[in-house]
Amino acid sequence: MNMKAYLKGALAVLACTAGIAAHAQKNYPRQEPMTPGMSEYWTPQPAVVAPGDSRTNGAPSDAVVLFDGSDLSAWTSAGGGPAEWPVHDGVFTVDKSKGDILTKRSFENFQLHLEWCVPEGISGESQSRGNSGVFLQDKYEIQILDGYRNETYVNGQVGSVYKQTPPLVNAMRRPGEWNVFDIIYSAPVFKEDGSYRIPPHVTVILNGVVLQNNTTILGTTEYVGFPRVVKHGAGPLRLQSHGDPSEPISFRNIWIREL
Amino acid sequence: MNMKAYLKGALAVLACTAGIAAHAQKNYPRQEPMTPGMSEYWTPQPAVVAPGDSRTNGAPSDAVVLFDGSDLSAWTSAGGGPAEWPVHDGVFTVDKSKGDILTKRSFENFQLHLEWCVPEGISGESQSRGNSGVFLQDKYEIQILDGYRNETYVNGQVGSVYKQTPPLVNAMRRPGEWNVFDIIYSAPVFKEDGSYRIPPHVTVILNGVVLQNNTTILGTTEYVGFPRVVKHGAGPLRLQSHGDPSEPISFRNIWIREL
Amino acid sequence: MNMKAYLKGALAVLACTAGIAAHAQKNYPRQEPMTPGMSEYWTPQPAVVAPGDSRTNGAPSDAVVLFDGSDLSAWTSAGGGPAEWPVHDGVFTVDKSKGDILTKRSFENFQLHLEWCVPEGISGESQSRGNSGVFLQDKYEIQILDGYRNETYVNGQVGSVYKQTPPLVNAMRRPGEWNVFDIIYSAPVFKEDGSYRIPPHVTVILNGVVLQNNTTILGTTEYVGFPRVVKHGAGPLRLQSHGDPSEPISFRNIWIREL
Amino acid sequence: MNMKAYLKGALAVLACTAGIAAHAQKNYPRQEPMTPGMSEYWTPQPAVVAPGDSRTNGAPSDAVVLFDGSDLSAWTSAGGGPAEWPVHDGVFTVDKSKGDILTKRSFENFQLHLEWCVPEGISGESQSRGNSGVFLQDKYEIQILDGYRNETYVNGQVGSVYKQTPPLVNAMRRPGEWNVFDIIYSAPVFKEDGSYRIPPHVTVILNGVVLQNNTTILGTTEYVGFPRVVKHGAGPLRLQSHGDPSEPISFRNIWIREL
Repeated sequence: MNMKAYLKGALAVLACTAGIAAHAQKNYPRQEPMTPGMSEYWTPQPAVVAPGDSRTNGAPSDAVVLFDGSDLSAWTSAGGGPAEWPVHDGVFTVDKSKGDILTKRSFENFQLHLEWCVPEGISGESQSRGNSGVFLQDKYEIQILDGYRNETYVNGQVGSVYKQTPPLVNAMRRPGEWNVFDIIYSAPVFKEDGSYRIPPHVTVILNGVVLQNNTTILGTTEYVGFPRVVKHGAGPLRLQSHGDPSEPISFRNIWIREL
Repeated sequence: MNMKAYLKGALAVLACTAGIAAHAQKNYPRQEPMTPGMSEYWTPQPAVVAPGDSRTNGAPSDAVVLFDGSDLSAWTSAGGGPAEWPVHDGVFTVDKSKGDILTKRSFENFQLHLEWCVPEGISGESQSRGNSGVFLQDKYEIQILDGYRNETYVNGQVGSVYKQTPPLVNAMRRPGEWNVFDIIYSAPVFKEDGSYRIPPHVTVILNGVVLQNNTTILGTTEYVGFPRVVKHGAGPLRLQSHGDPSEPISFRNIWIREL
Repeated sequence: MNMKAYLKGALAVLACTAGIAAHAQKNYPRQEPMTPGMSEYWTPQPAVVAPGDSRTNGAPSDAVVLFDGSDLSAWTSAGGGPAEWPVHDGVFTVDKSKGDILTKRSFENFQLHLEWCVPEGISGESQSRGNSGVFLQDKYEIQILDGYRNETYVNGQVGSVYKQTPPLVNAMRRPGEWNVFDIIYSAPVFKEDGSYRIPPHVTVILNGVVLQNNTTILGTTEYVGFPRVVKHGAGPLRLQSHGDPSEPISFRNIWIREL
Repeated sequence: MNMKAYLKGALAVLACTAGIAAHAQKNYPRQEPMTPGMSEYWTPQPAVVAPGDSRTNGAPSDAVVLFDGSDLSAWTSAGGGPAEWPVHDGVFTVDKSKGDILTKRSFENFQLHLEWCVPEGISGESQSRGNSGVFLQDKYEIQILDGYRNETYVNGQVGSVYKQTPPLVNAMRRPGEWNVFDIIYSAPVFKEDGSYRIPPHVTVILNGVVLQNNTTILGTTEYVGFPRVVKHGAGPLRLQSHGDPSEPISFRNIWIREL
């Protein structure tokens, strides 16, 4: 700032106002015309990806398949050792005595596809009915729960960013039917001090219906208290073995694509 | 700004530096502990939406169905009068002599589902093969084209924000197979002067593969020259009848949900 | 999704991979060259604004002056009736018996300039020392406090989005010196259901030092509990008459520009 | 997606609708009350920064001073060797025969303060009058030009992101007076393929008036053609020695703070 400039500036106000009136009469140069080829570029050509088909359980050709119906070799137990949830009939089912499972690989920005099913005739209510969850980068939980005629706190409903942002709608299928999550996740970018320069974002589609549209994730999804901001790098997916007393849910067809 | 403050401030530098060292020894109050119920809220409960099923051609229960296989009554001709593209076998096919068609209803923020098919044995190359497009709010074109073994400029490929942002990958199915677009669109917010306060954004998923992830749309998708920023409100969808000489493409199963 | 497409898709994978190898040998068209005048446009010319000078207490020519040293005619008492904080020596000072004051005019997106001074020899500590605040749109408080050698919870420090986001640094001047806030505020955009489509954002500069850089505001700045999302339109500025027992602070040179 | 689920889903629609009516009569649990101390945290305390004063030419205590009136030792010539623009009277002046100059240090995210002055009695018009510019990370030019009663293309005006985004207003002081730029810059984040994951953003304040408010930078600021996206890391500031025939401009008081 400059005191001399301050003093002179006052006159500028009047002068400039006069200038505005003069504009109206001007003939300005026109933006020069272009040809179509000026706004066309040919390289790099995008990579070709074959969309999913029945032979791949719907996984696109560039996906990392995390479960194709055969085994849990892409997963490990959160407590150490191999993942021990039972695999049967092309699906696997939570074993609440075995704890959470995590992918062996870590991921940053990705598209995730994951199907899950609440058992028919499930009992319990609110958070005690079909409770699980998928943790993105082992930090941010997208809630999995039986939401079919089962009310609970809205920021804990299926497809919520757990205890942060409720889903736009409840698009849950009934117990015994398979639910499909398609999740697009953008990892956070951190400052050196561990705070977010760019927080994580997530889009969640359940059964073809948008539940979260590039929602900002505020921090870790805590059961108690405020979200926390914790510096991290690439991280695995975690599937939750929740202690709720109801019958356990099952998963199938899990794949992920780095973006 | 304040000159007297300037003069005094110099001493503050030294004083404050001394203050920093003192911090290290302090015992700060702890954030008070919370209970789980403090971060749970129960209203408003999200609306229940039944996901699509075979009886609805996949349309969720709250969708506006724009084409269910029977007729084009939800559409009008860009040139005025009823939409006259031929409906047959539960699909409709572009009639290049009839011009573009638009939805009768206008939309703002939405999720759009739309399926389209390039005829088997299609001829032509680059932009002259299966060229069409869906214009969001009648302003912003997401490119539809035969991209199967058909190279073109990358910002004009299928799933591009036309002449702006190329798709992340090419996830096109071969001619004769149906391609599925799932599009999440966030309308712009304008200033009074007609410029964007918030530009439009779009997520595009083709055949289950992410092509655009909340991409910023820079303005109208012009064939010649730069994108233009033009103030507008709610707008219809437009399907393009492009003059390319190849055999025309077909559409089916079109629905939209306001977000 | 389409089962027939699924079955056919498998072959596409191999076919497309072969296609990639073929790319390497291609000569793609080049983007056509442009001239400089194609990326130059002349209208509309931006409005001319004379920057502040000493005759305007620093207010630019298009600013709404909210306090120029003479009176509180641009303000009203939160409890009704005229604003009654005492004006003296070209500044005004909080009168804690009179409650908060608000601008008579309401604002949406704006740039705000506001100067404030903690009295020399102020007593008290933490939030009980020079506590006030400026509420943007009467909803979102940017904290005003004596932060000079006065520690408090970090999300309640001077320049915090109160109880949300701490300032990047503590750039406070000592009591008796004037502090300058320059605040750039972007109002939220709401959905019909009252939730944010776009949350508010704020940039805060204190004494020429950036404290908040386009920080997302999460909701109202509550003393107790989580931020709340409450639908609102244009709103006034509110200056807080806080009940802390310390000597009251003073304000001067307040102006605002709609953006 | 799942065909069996599709078939069953139809019944769900009716069932769920019945469910909605039932909601209205429910008494939901209330969010548990909190105490003020639950939303207060005390560490880490923000670093103390002494704002600028007259002894520091306005530079805050944590700033990197790039020019304090004495010499160009923080700068280098773009063509190699020491920066050779003449320093006199506490300022330095462009020498058009010597080419651009760059800071020796590189920066990422920052707050930049820079003052510049167009000589009184300057001749020329449009881009040929007082043309220079400051390139952020040596890639993105914020235009410097005599904009006082000097019209030019609006996306080339003073404070424009050159050939991209015009300034909100023209807040230029007249020749012979000092202009002050305060610039807040957020560096881009790149994907591995060299495209932006997060594009750069910039806020520009000229003489205390906001010209750019967290504007998205689309790519390099090209004289001819479209912005280009080029992967880069930290980069220096560049001051432009433009070949325009008018009398050269001067600079003073340049400092920067990493954010």
